[in-house]
Amino acid sequence: MSQIQGHNYIGGQRSAEGDKVLHSVNASSGEILAQPFHEATPDEIDRAALAAQSAYPVYRSLSGERRAQFLDAVADELDALGDDFIAEVSRETALPAGRIQGERARTSGQMRLFAKVLRRGDYLGVRIDHALPERKPLPRPDLRQYRIGVGPVAVFGASNFPLAFSTAGGDTAAALAAGCPVVFKAHSGHLFTAERVADAVIRAAERTAMPAGVFNMIYGDWVGERLVKHPAIQAVGFTGSLRGGRALCDMAAARPQPIPVFAEMSSINPLILLPTALAVRGRAIATELAASVVLGAGQFCTNPGLVLGVKSAELTAFVEQLAAIFGEEPAQTLLNPGGLAHYSKGVERLRAHPGVEHLAGHPHSGRQAQPQLFKADVQLLLDADEVVQEEVFGPTTLLVEVADQAQLLQVLNSLHGQLTATLIAEPADFSAFAELTPLLEQKVGRILVNGYPTGVEVCEAMVHGGPYPATSDARGTSVGTRAIDRFLRPVCFQNYPEALLPEVLHEANPWKVPRLVDGEWQA
Amino acid sequence: MSQIQGHNYIGGQRSAEGDKVLHSVNASSGEILAQPFHEATPDEIDRAALAAQSAYPVYRSLSGERRAQFLDAVADELDALGDDFIAEVSRETALPAGRIQGERARTSGQMRLFAKVLRRGDYLGVRIDHALPERKPLPRPDLRQYRIGVGPVAVFGASNFPLAFSTAGGDTAAALAAGCPVVFKAHSGHLFTAERVADAVIRAAERTAMPAGVFNMIYGDWVGERLVKHPAIQAVGFTGSLRGGRALCDMAAARPQPIPVFAEMSSINPLILLPTALAVRGRAIATELAASVVLGAGQFCTNPGLVLGVKSAELTAFVEQLAAIFGEEPAQTLLNPGGLAHYSKGVERLRAHPGVEHLAGHPHSGRQAQPQLFKADVQLLLDADEVVQEEVFGPTTLLVEVADQAQLLQVLNSLHGQLTATLIAEPADFSAFAELTPLLEQKVGRILVNGYPTGVEVCEAMVHGGPYPATSDARGTSVGTRAIDRFLRPVCFQNYPEALLPEVLHEANPWKVPRLVDGEWQA
Repeated sequence: MSQIQGHNYIGGQRSAEGDKVLHSVNASSGEILAQPFHEATPDEIDRAALAAQSAYPVYRSLSGERRAQFLDAVADELDALGDDFIAEVSRETALPAGRIQGERARTSGQMRLFAKVLRRGDYLGVRIDHALPERKPLPRPDLRQYRIGVGPVAVFGASNFPLAFSTAGGDTAAALAAGCPVVFKAHSGHLFTAERVADAVIRAAERTAMPAGVFNMIYGDWVGERLVKHPAIQAVGFTGSLRGGRALCDMAAARPQPIPVFAEMSSINPLILLPTALAVRGRAIATELAASVVLGAGQFCTNPGLVLGVKSAELTAFVEQLAAIFGEEPAQTLLNPGGLAHYSKGVERLRAHPGVEHLAGHPHSGRQAQPQLFKADVQLLLDADEVVQEEVFGPTTLLVEVADQAQLLQVLNSLHGQLTATLIAEPADFSAFAELTPLLEQKVGRILVNGYPTGVEVCEAMVHGGPYPATSDARGTSVGTRAIDRFLRPVCFQNYPEALLPEVLHEANPWKVPRLVDGEWQA
Repeated sequence: MSQIQGHNYIGGQRSAEGDKVLHSVNASSGEILAQPFHEATPDEIDRAALAAQSAYPVYRSLSGERRAQFLDAVADELDALGDDFIAEVSRETALPAGRIQGERARTSGQMRLFAKVLRRGDYLGVRIDHALPERKPLPRPDLRQYRIGVGPVAVFGASNFPLAFSTAGGDTAAALAAGCPVVFKAHSGHLFTAERVADAVIRAAERTAMPAGVFNMIYGDWVGERLVKHPAIQAVGFTGSLRGGRALCDMAAARPQPIPVFAEMSSINPLILLPTALAVRGRAIATELAASVVLGAGQFCTNPGLVLGVKSAELTAFVEQLAAIFGEEPAQTLLNPGGLAHYSKGVERLRAHPGVEHLAGHPHSGRQAQPQLFKADVQLLLDADEVVQEEVFGPTTLLVEVADQAQLLQVLNSLHGQLTATLIAEPADFSAFAELTPLLEQKVGRILVNGYPTGVEVCEAMVHGGPYPATSDARGTSVGTRAIDRFLRPVCFQNYPEALLPEVLHEANPWKVPRLVDGEWQA
């Protein structure tokens, strides 16, 4: 087992120059754990950014195969962490061992999937236009394009996936795959976990002879601003709250050199119950929906926070069933006391809202979150009321009854951007509500039929993104292999002698990558 | 010949509700032309944005083939404009007829190239991960991804390419190809040209039955801010000054919903003269370089504004030759009086700078720009002096002598981001200066060998982009087919019945597009 030091990771070394320390908390008992974690000083933040900058020229120039070996090694190191690691994550997050094991498999699988992308080479986007020396009125020179990493990336992970969206999570994997060294701000909600995972990444980097500084991690609640403003940082990946994400976006945009930020922030993930489905299998839907809302204590970006149905006897019966199920749901321990405080405030806001009715759920008490079911007047959505569009992070959802199909469309049109939308439907519903798909496409990053949005598959086709405020840039995704695009930029070589070109652009295609040559794809 | 009306283009109609008018100017004589062009009122700006928003759901859902027909029709309409059109553009811009004809061919060719991309279908980025119902521990649902246009795009064109970077220029072509309706702010430097081109676009839209509002154009010097802040606008394309581009970026970032801006702004395009090349063919290089600097009166984003050479007798001889050529270069008429004023100020700033020496060029007088050659002390670049890194838009360049190879690297490291860098080199130089290519890759969007950056080929492999301040987002390009990426976002469908899916995602691949299926490319 590793020795926890609580020191920052800078350029392959450990550093603890600051006096301020953070402590982790036993999420179940609330006990403050003794181990100090040293907040990075301003100088340490700068050194971490500069270490990443030093690593960049070497790291970005490595072959895809070499970077793939590094990612595979990270995956192996993660998988090799012992039971004590699982116990440690569980202690900090109150997540059960099975969930942590599953999340670890997802996290190492994500690294291996990006390794596969690196070996496939399509992310390089190689394009070749051969010279046309005889063309009139002017000859065309030889032009060749590929994509390189944008530079060092600052990554801010989320509390709710201490592995998959944290230290060695999706943003880190995408940035490292793209050839961008990373400076990771350790999440204060799981400091032991962060250190164990950072150790695994560093072991992998050393084992595969990566440049020192390819991965850095700093501790501290207030280190983010200086990091994002550091001139060496060229892009930011963030998963967290709307307020936090927007603040980083604003800082990045106001830099002397603005940099891109991909922030995954706030989504209430509307779920639309269509009439035939409700009539045919309303009871089953109530059971499944409740399970999705309380899964992982509702601490998912894709938690279904808004349920829409068309007024009918079936809907009324469904709501009664759902309320009965919610009334029986046990309280759950959240990831940390801060999360519980936020959840309680969110629930209080809904309870206090004159247009919102409380349907089920026990009053808040003690250290656990009580699942809650609310119902809101449709007019609140039509009036763009902020309370009902705000994400409440925890096991709660809000039902809204619409008068008819026309009002359903009106309501969907009035929604903010979302990560997901879900249709619960039978074939008869699909034809009757065919206009929903094109409308939802404009609102969300992923549309599901007869599923629940809380499972986010790590694959080529996934989109975990969507229009603001779901993310800061709807052109990106933070899950799935397209996530790498956020951290790549194209470079073109004109009339370049082959010996000087990056190897991947050589005529013989030595890396065997897909290429667009004179306007045609060659596999 | 069209009748010039000077009315705004809103949703397929003309509108002139405002009292304020603009006038175009005969660029050669300075005569103010009588035709009034009505500035859009705030209400007209809003209506233009809303017209684009109304067109969006229909336009984005058209097949690639249908949008390709529209772009081809625009190209045909541009090519069909008569000699009176060429004369009109020439009158407003002082550009010679041959240049305008060439630029028109480039502009219509650009439309046709994007039509080809639409027919190829790779821009859709189709990815399919089939369901794995038997997978343990959890089954995988069917997931399918493609990309759709982000929504209405506001486009701001440049003065220096009244066709290729203006009304129906590269940003408009890329946005329309992506499925994004456009609101174009007519450039005040060529109002007649703008109207004639807008007419051509509208004729093409009507002929191919595009939705009204697919293309809108508004006049006015102060309409940009309201347009960029309008909630219907989802992205911005801009070509122009650093000050103007940065202002738009800041506005877009400060919106309640921030939107992406691709602004192509400021670049001095360093050209590096390597020793053997200078020794072997210094005189020829001097002639070619001078021709590139004064081409089109130096009014190109890729004008070589900084020439670097290593101190030597050959460099001294080269500088003398170059100075002699510059001394003979005739004055040229710029695109507009504003451009001349800016150029004169830029030249004055260099003349007044204590570290800058004036080598050749006649004093400014009258209505034309005099080509100028300057030499600056290398220390100014090392000190990041702003004057020598600032683009002077016109026929001028700045020579800098470095002491040796090490100082050359130091200077290049200190430069801001650029659109291009150029190496003038012989094989012996390539091996002696091999470290230049990886270094320049990190600084620029395009690197040339033994060419001049002023020609920007419209093709698949071109990058007309680069790190800030060359552009606001190094991940984009505004020339070449990759420009479409700026205006596309991915959407994912999970467990979707085929009948409800967009046709391009159907299993049989009816559009015959390249697809990534279960991790493998199918052509």
